[in-house]
Amino acid sequence: MINTSTILIKDVEVVGRRGRTSVYIEDGKIVELGEVKVEAERVFKGNYVLSPAFYNTHTHAAMTLFRGYGDDMELQEWLTTKIWPKEANLREEDIYWGTRLAAIEMIHSGTVAFADMYFYVEAVGRAVVDQGVRALISGGFIDLFDEDRREREIKTVEAGLKALEGFPRERVRPSLGPHAVYTVSKEGFEYIRDKADETGYPIQIHLLETREELEEFLKEHGTSPIRYLQELGILRRGTITAHSVHLTDDEIRTLSRIGVYPSHCPISNMKLSVKGIMPAQRMINSGIKVTLGTDGAASNNSLNMLEEMKFAALLAKGLSAPTDLPAETVFKMATEWGAEALGFRGGRIEEGYDADLLLFRKDHYSFTPGYNFTSDIVYSATPSSLDTVICLGEVLMEGGVVEGEEDVINKAREVAYDLIQR
Amino acid sequence: MINTSTILIKDVEVVGRRGRTSVYIEDGKIVELGEVKVEAERVFKGNYVLSPAFYNTHTHAAMTLFRGYGDDMELQEWLTTKIWPKEANLREEDIYWGTRLAAIEMIHSGTVAFADMYFYVEAVGRAVVDQGVRALISGGFIDLFDEDRREREIKTVEAGLKALEGFPRERVRPSLGPHAVYTVSKEGFEYIRDKADETGYPIQIHLLETREELEEFLKEHGTSPIRYLQELGILRRGTITAHSVHLTDDEIRTLSRIGVYPSHCPISNMKLSVKGIMPAQRMINSGIKVTLGTDGAASNNSLNMLEEMKFAALLAKGLSAPTDLPAETVFKMATEWGAEALGFRGGRIEEGYDADLLLFRKDHYSFTPGYNFTSDIVYSATPSSLDTVICLGEVLMEGGVVEGEEDVINKAREVAYDLIQR
Repeated sequence: MINTSTILIKDVEVVGRRGRTSVYIEDGKIVELGEVKVEAERVFKGNYVLSPAFYNTHTHAAMTLFRGYGDDMELQEWLTTKIWPKEANLREEDIYWGTRLAAIEMIHSGTVAFADMYFYVEAVGRAVVDQGVRALISGGFIDLFDEDRREREIKTVEAGLKALEGFPRERVRPSLGPHAVYTVSKEGFEYIRDKADETGYPIQIHLLETREELEEFLKEHGTSPIRYLQELGILRRGTITAHSVHLTDDEIRTLSRIGVYPSHCPISNMKLSVKGIMPAQRMINSGIKVTLGTDGAASNNSLNMLEEMKFAALLAKGLSAPTDLPAETVFKMATEWGAEALGFRGGRIEEGYDADLLLFRKDHYSFTPGYNFTSDIVYSATPSSLDTVICLGEVLMEGGVVEGEEDVINKAREVAYDLIQR
Repeated sequence: MINTSTILIKDVEVVGRRGRTSVYIEDGKIVELGEVKVEAERVFKGNYVLSPAFYNTHTHAAMTLFRGYGDDMELQEWLTTKIWPKEANLREEDIYWGTRLAAIEMIHSGTVAFADMYFYVEAVGRAVVDQGVRALISGGFIDLFDEDRREREIKTVEAGLKALEGFPRERVRPSLGPHAVYTVSKEGFEYIRDKADETGYPIQIHLLETREELEEFLKEHGTSPIRYLQELGILRRGTITAHSVHLTDDEIRTLSRIGVYPSHCPISNMKLSVKGIMPAQRMINSGIKVTLGTDGAASNNSLNMLEEMKFAALLAKGLSAPTDLPAETVFKMATEWGAEALGFRGGRIEEGYDADLLLFRKDHYSFTPGYNFTSDIVYSATPSSLDTVICLGEVLMEGGVVEGEEDVINKAREVAYDLIQR
């Protein structure tokens, strides 16, 4: 699954650095940087800005099938009248094509890897491998405090992990996805914890997305979800906590000590009106590696990390201080810290790192004048600014074109219309 | 200046409507809609979604030259150390190329017309005409309460209006641009008012952008800027009020009665941390036609109305209610109401309206599945979703390419680097 052909990116400018360099890629890794003398099978030479690719730490990829299906609605009405009834009819093939559509959109906007929590994990894995990207994959474990349902969910997890273990590990990393404190029982969480202990697989969970979630939990349990999940062993080093909007300063310190990777999803938070915004700068100040996620296309309606970076940076400024979440910080969230959260050795342009790389078009208006490439990527670039996407040394997009994308788009549209009429 | 060649867009789907139609364009106008039988010199037939183009009601176009030059800074520090010292060195040629660069970026993101308030209005007019777009143009009148300065500014206005009157009116509409209450004296405003009375040209002004602006004015004058500007005749039917963030319910009713067009600039407001967000839904509920503006590229850092629509809609939801500013409303702000504010007969696909039209690529991932084109344009589309841009019956972009754009981009980069080293 590793592309063994060699690539040389010649004499290119690099985001965040001065001067030019060349990059030599072999077996999916950055092998040499600087004045490279060797020859390669593929050579890229042009007016490019080289950047690490992006890592999207929270999504439900196949929800691309619901893009634009229900917008501008109250969360509960949206879930109960639009999303849940249709999700109940999802088939494995829908998930496969919806995930490939998602991967294509992510490639176009510079993302090569994502954390997914949805249905039919084996289909997700196939789509990831077939589209040439990478993912940390779990189902969403939801027992609704019902024992029978829990038994069924446990069987689904066991079968899912087994299926995921069949994929090449550098592409597909298995994960455990207890959905949230309001959908999973204590016993459910205990099962997940034991499974995580046994396998070493990371956990991803929705945490403190809405204020209602916080208030209802406090009323019922007399303690905060953070303390509850910490005691249950769900919040542990490496857990990805999606959203994490409503946090006290004490809880921020707790999360920092534990070593979780919060996934900030500002666009989804705005769309679903969660009445708050993650205190990302304060969390980073306390040592937390905050990452970025698009959430699913139903609550975004894109999977575009360029857009997510801009929203994250500007919301922090708008609602707090103009110096909060500067471009360099947001860029790190989307690259280095995101890669770390997903468990991939990417997000940096350094020898030994995975060759997950982007070539932006320096001659694009969004890079003009081009005083500061980090700023241009975070605040100005759009998918049309991006020329080439490389993942594990494989060229997934060149000249803005992903090979075969029309077929995937057509097939995804077909299954989507079938799904909503089902 | 009107393109007299005929265009037929055949059998196309239209945003916000059911079914397909054909559109026949002659002399820059939509002449026939429906089952068109006539022949045309140019025919567009493909898998498109037809949309009205966008109208950007607040920008300082040539500030593209400052894109990424200073970010993540406090407003005052940014203005005094970065922007003002360099603006003092701006030359007419800088403005011309900066404005052409801006026009290219706007075309790529579907905007064909904008309201501009900056320097060297004659150069702005030339750039607008040469790039094939349209604009309502003023300088920024700033007398800083100084009589000598006011006399110089008045001469600049008189010369500027004369120059602007030399351009074809369907492309260039002259306007008066008193900068703001904190930079213009009472006498300055009186001059502007008299000039507006005399010429009938519309006024554009920055209004209540920051909380400091409001608080300092209240302290000094004991009345609100709204009442002051209303009494001075600056707030009148048709005035474009940029930002208009900090408004009471009473003031919203006043603005509604007057009939101003507020220009909502959510991205700039977030970036410059104005500590608030325009109550756009409440204003619309009271009968105000709220429009959308990108502001200058220094405080955005794009001129992308697709992005601006998404920010506007999502901020309203995030900070108020998920049903606020639905996609259809935001779309109307960017099209119909924007055109009206700029004084162009555009923004609607109807016989007799200007042929300012967009063809989106329906086969793009952002329109997949494609349940609701308005939602797809507002929440999912990016410049790469757009194929063709037509302005007054002239094709400005086709297949995502604006003819000659490389030369403009190169020239703009050149003058920008010269400017910041000057």
